[in-house]
Amino acid sequence: MKNASTGFVVDTSKSPYAKLFPIPIKNVQIIDEFWAPRLKIVREVTLPSQYRLCEKTGRFANFRRAAGKEHCNFQGLFFNDSDVYKWIEAVAYSLAGVHDNVLLNLVQIVIPLIMAVQDKDGYLNTYFTFERRNERWTNLKDMHELYCAGHLIQAAISYYRFTGDRRLLDVACRVADHIGRFFGAGKRLGVPGHPEVEMALVELYRTTGKEEYLDMARFFIDNRGKGLVGGSAYHIDHRPFRELTEIAGHAVRSIYLNCGATDVYMETGEKALLDALTKLWSNMTNRKMYITGGVGSRHEGEAFGEDYELPNVRAYAETCAAIANVMWNWRMLLISGDAKFTDVLELALYNGVLSRISLDGQQYFYVNPLEDNGHHKRQNWFECACCPPNIARLLTSLPGYFYSLSKKGVWVHLYASNIANVVVDGMNVTITQKTRYPWEGDVDLVMRLEKMAAFSLFLRIPNWCQKPLILMNGIELSGPIKRGCYVEIHRLWEDGDTVHVSMPMFIEQIIANSNLIENNDKVALKRGPIVYCIEQVDNPNIDLKNLILPAEPVLEAKWKPDLLNGVVVIEGEAFLIEPIEQNDNLYFSLSETKTKIRSVKFTAIPYFTWANREQGPMKVWIRSSTFLSSINWKN
Amino acid sequence: MKNASTGFVVDTSKSPYAKLFPIPIKNVQIIDEFWAPRLKIVREVTLPSQYRLCEKTGRFANFRRAAGKEHCNFQGLFFNDSDVYKWIEAVAYSLAGVHDNVLLNLVQIVIPLIMAVQDKDGYLNTYFTFERRNERWTNLKDMHELYCAGHLIQAAISYYRFTGDRRLLDVACRVADHIGRFFGAGKRLGVPGHPEVEMALVELYRTTGKEEYLDMARFFIDNRGKGLVGGSAYHIDHRPFRELTEIAGHAVRSIYLNCGATDVYMETGEKALLDALTKLWSNMTNRKMYITGGVGSRHEGEAFGEDYELPNVRAYAETCAAIANVMWNWRMLLISGDAKFTDVLELALYNGVLSRISLDGQQYFYVNPLEDNGHHKRQNWFECACCPPNIARLLTSLPGYFYSLSKKGVWVHLYASNIANVVVDGMNVTITQKTRYPWEGDVDLVMRLEKMAAFSLFLRIPNWCQKPLILMNGIELSGPIKRGCYVEIHRLWEDGDTVHVSMPMFIEQIIANSNLIENNDKVALKRGPIVYCIEQVDNPNIDLKNLILPAEPVLEAKWKPDLLNGVVVIEGEAFLIEPIEQNDNLYFSLSETKTKIRSVKFTAIPYFTWANREQGPMKVWIRSSTFLSSINWKN
Repeated sequence: MKNASTGFVVDTSKSPYAKLFPIPIKNVQIIDEFWAPRLKIVREVTLPSQYRLCEKTGRFANFRRAAGKEHCNFQGLFFNDSDVYKWIEAVAYSLAGVHDNVLLNLVQIVIPLIMAVQDKDGYLNTYFTFERRNERWTNLKDMHELYCAGHLIQAAISYYRFTGDRRLLDVACRVADHIGRFFGAGKRLGVPGHPEVEMALVELYRTTGKEEYLDMARFFIDNRGKGLVGGSAYHIDHRPFRELTEIAGHAVRSIYLNCGATDVYMETGEKALLDALTKLWSNMTNRKMYITGGVGSRHEGEAFGEDYELPNVRAYAETCAAIANVMWNWRMLLISGDAKFTDVLELALYNGVLSRISLDGQQYFYVNPLEDNGHHKRQNWFECACCPPNIARLLTSLPGYFYSLSKKGVWVHLYASNIANVVVDGMNVTITQKTRYPWEGDVDLVMRLEKMAAFSLFLRIPNWCQKPLILMNGIELSGPIKRGCYVEIHRLWEDGDTVHVSMPMFIEQIIANSNLIENNDKVALKRGPIVYCIEQVDNPNIDLKNLILPAEPVLEAKWKPDLLNGVVVIEGEAFLIEPIEQNDNLYFSLSETKTKIRSVKFTAIPYFTWANREQGPMKVWIRSSTFLSSINWKN
Repeated sequence: MKNASTGFVVDTSKSPYAKLFPIPIKNVQIIDEFWAPRLKIVREVTLPSQYRLCEKTGRFANFRRAAGKEHCNFQGLFFNDSDVYKWIEAVAYSLAGVHDNVLLNLVQIVIPLIMAVQDKDGYLNTYFTFERRNERWTNLKDMHELYCAGHLIQAAISYYRFTGDRRLLDVACRVADHIGRFFGAGKRLGVPGHPEVEMALVELYRTTGKEEYLDMARFFIDNRGKGLVGGSAYHIDHRPFRELTEIAGHAVRSIYLNCGATDVYMETGEKALLDALTKLWSNMTNRKMYITGGVGSRHEGEAFGEDYELPNVRAYAETCAAIANVMWNWRMLLISGDAKFTDVLELALYNGVLSRISLDGQQYFYVNPLEDNGHHKRQNWFECACCPPNIARLLTSLPGYFYSLSKKGVWVHLYASNIANVVVDGMNVTITQKTRYPWEGDVDLVMRLEKMAAFSLFLRIPNWCQKPLILMNGIELSGPIKRGCYVEIHRLWEDGDTVHVSMPMFIEQIIANSNLIENNDKVALKRGPIVYCIEQVDNPNIDLKNLILPAEPVLEAKWKPDLLNGVVVIEGEAFLIEPIEQNDNLYFSLSETKTKIRSVKFTAIPYFTWANREQGPMKVWIRSSTFLSSINWKN
């Protein structure tokens, strides 16, 4: 058993095929104006409110019932246990960073509730008790028992790592051992209908050192594609995992499975797994991902669609899928140290994840359109409430994503003002970041060392950054600084060394691959890592769908400290088409249509802040005359 | 019992609230170059091939099995009986027009198969026999028993009307009587999960005069919205029918139900029904219908989507839904004599229906995209084969849609060379149409009368026709001829009177309502009633999605007798954007994208002929610089 103080989210510190090793959450203190207030809201508002909602919706009652302490019917959906587990995981990460008596007391009420439910044989699931006891493990395809077990294991590991309290970890090991007695080589064949347990089992292996947990994770990956859960792409059971080339099926299931396979790879180094993962990643990012990092475009089956099937109004883009996207890219990054994974992680984090929770930390999106007529709004909770605690656990674990270590030194993945304590070759190094990121691209790092030491500092230059510049103690680094990669500064570091990273943020007009036909002749506005949208409330007299950006628009970024908790907006001029003599018909002859065009000013806001004020239409992809107007002068 | 020789599809001849009355199919002889060859193919190729497929797929075997004549398992889906019934109906319409020994012999083999299955109590469904006998009428929501009964009744009526043979009609009456003993006021409550029996029962009332059948149809409409089949919009059970304002749910179910309600209205005149139907029709045509007349845009649930949810690539637009659209508009027309219904009927007929069957009459689309990457192709048959015999019965009944009678005279709805015999005030009138419609808009009508008679001739002027002209015996009708309505010519008709209708066909660029955002900055080409598309095979070196029509394109219509069995194509010049330095990425910064633009010639073909040659991309909505280029000169 490892030391309880490691406090890693994904503990690759002993993984033979990981390139990067983690830094404990507690060692990174975020002190900026962007993330720190958000994490505070999660801690003080979101997590307590989710506790209340778990109580109100019977999620805790289900545990009391299963333990024989309360007489009632099972409440809600059969996988509701998992929401409680994700809440515990979120609380554990939060406690790792900041002591909070409220959360500590609440979680210490919940842990015994769970422990009391476990059967002598290790089984633990509040749905399959009493009248449903005989149905245990009879329907892996639909009933999410392994999924719930996975979340229990993850919660237990986190709680153990951040509190040292191993009670829930012991429960989780008994659950895993119970699963291991049923399933495995020479025993019963089976795979989970909803992957998730795979990454949990690998993490349990990392936590306990017991190889059978790694074997079980591999077993659940090896046996996919055999029709054990129906053989559909929805269940990612249509083909053996190693033969997959295109990402398909239920998006969260699909990416959770990829997370598990990536975790297995980091322990086994099996090339076939990495090959499949690489293909799946390329297919996803080049064909099936929204500009926000959201994935799973199709409502039907909450699934990945065909290549380039990325509707804006009818985007599904489940919140949990964007979270899963962060989780998977983090793991791919740990394998490779390749900044292309960090780019997607960052994109999904600022746009795909952050947009899913309201600024007040109490309302959530489940479905995430990129264009809306004004009816879509965040909810307090959902009958299927997978997303809210999933956001919470991602955000509370965020400090763990900022840095890594490798054999050569320290890696800086994300930028925000923070103080990080890392141990390089046994020596404490303190790194201070000062920046207004993501609103400005200047970052000042100060290195504090006990003594001089030679190692490398790897600085991520995002791929969006067209003109990066690095100053080492005020002197520009020689040679071109490439973007979309990590710049290695190897030197004999001295106490007080400073590094300045300049990543100028320009307002960029993004166009989509022309195969993404819905976005033909449209552009999205992006600045740094932030994707923008236009929302009705900022543009009261403009019919957003008829706003057209000219070929070379005048666009200006402005810091608005009082708007939406402080954002950089983009202001610009564009054209508005006003159709006249257009009745309610769906189709018109162009020859009978008259329009007038006028110039208007408009304001765009970060996509992640939309739907926090009065409801109204919103759109990310704005019509543009870029290509079409050029026809005229070339004609 | 009415005379067996009436031969109507929808027999409103005694319906008190119908404005228009039918002309028997056999009285209209289509002799043109467009429809006549198609109807011949349906008769000689389609219907015999469907007979073989019904045999091959066990549909006939299911009847033999249920009659105890063959020992096998039930084959296929539980509603497969309905395909046999639709085939019979198609054959009956076909036989009404043209004697065909092959079809007559085949249908006479099938009729006894069906008769042999009927139980003494009147029940008839091959799925619910033997081991499933006890499940009869236990699941109206899912099991399509009333749906199959409806198709049996329709087949029986048609076969009786066109052959005088009442054996199957007697069977159908016993089925209906059996249903009536189970369901009705004071008996069991219930509605069909899949509407269809409603219109069948009204037609059975019209055929037999028995009011209980009309009462049953009304009962099945009255009891919707009570949750009897689950209460979902999918089943159109979310709200009482008379309270519906937006068309929703499974498209075929929804429109079949509307057909039934329209039929009930024609008998009862209940205003609340007509009010609901009017709202549903407006919502459908102004918000949820493709430019082709296809409906039901959403894959999920084969359903109507939200307002303006009309994706091109991911259109569902089931074949049967377009057919249902024709059926419903026909009924709305019979109520009203309003040409807006004929406009939609014609649109759906030439584009939404005709595109669903291959030129050789043997392959069918089930799903009908308006843009495709080249993978979509017609199939010989489907496991769920509702569409193929549905197309067949619509096309074989087509002669019945050309004319109607009203108290004031004769109505001309559709144009094609034909000879029609109608009876006006007891006198035989022969109308001869000569035209190259739908390729040219000139129609010559010659009236042959036994003696002079005063009545009105109502000529439909399609709404697409911007400059209609009518010559009566060579002299232009005075006053403006309005389009989108029926022009009434009341006179004392003499033998040999001629009417010339001139409906000049211009190539029109159609734009969609700007709320249909996917089609912003796109146009579709249309000429007369025909919607065009561009297909890769005609435009070999053009990336269709990057083809852009200039603001005022040069477009030319050309008759191509050897192409696709003879079509008018549209040839034109447009611009092609060729992105360079564009890698495989999904998203690019515009500032880093370079494009070149060149002028190209392109050819568009009628949408209904697509996918009849080598596979390749196709699209209906073409990018256009119309609005955007105007920005420059107005700027």
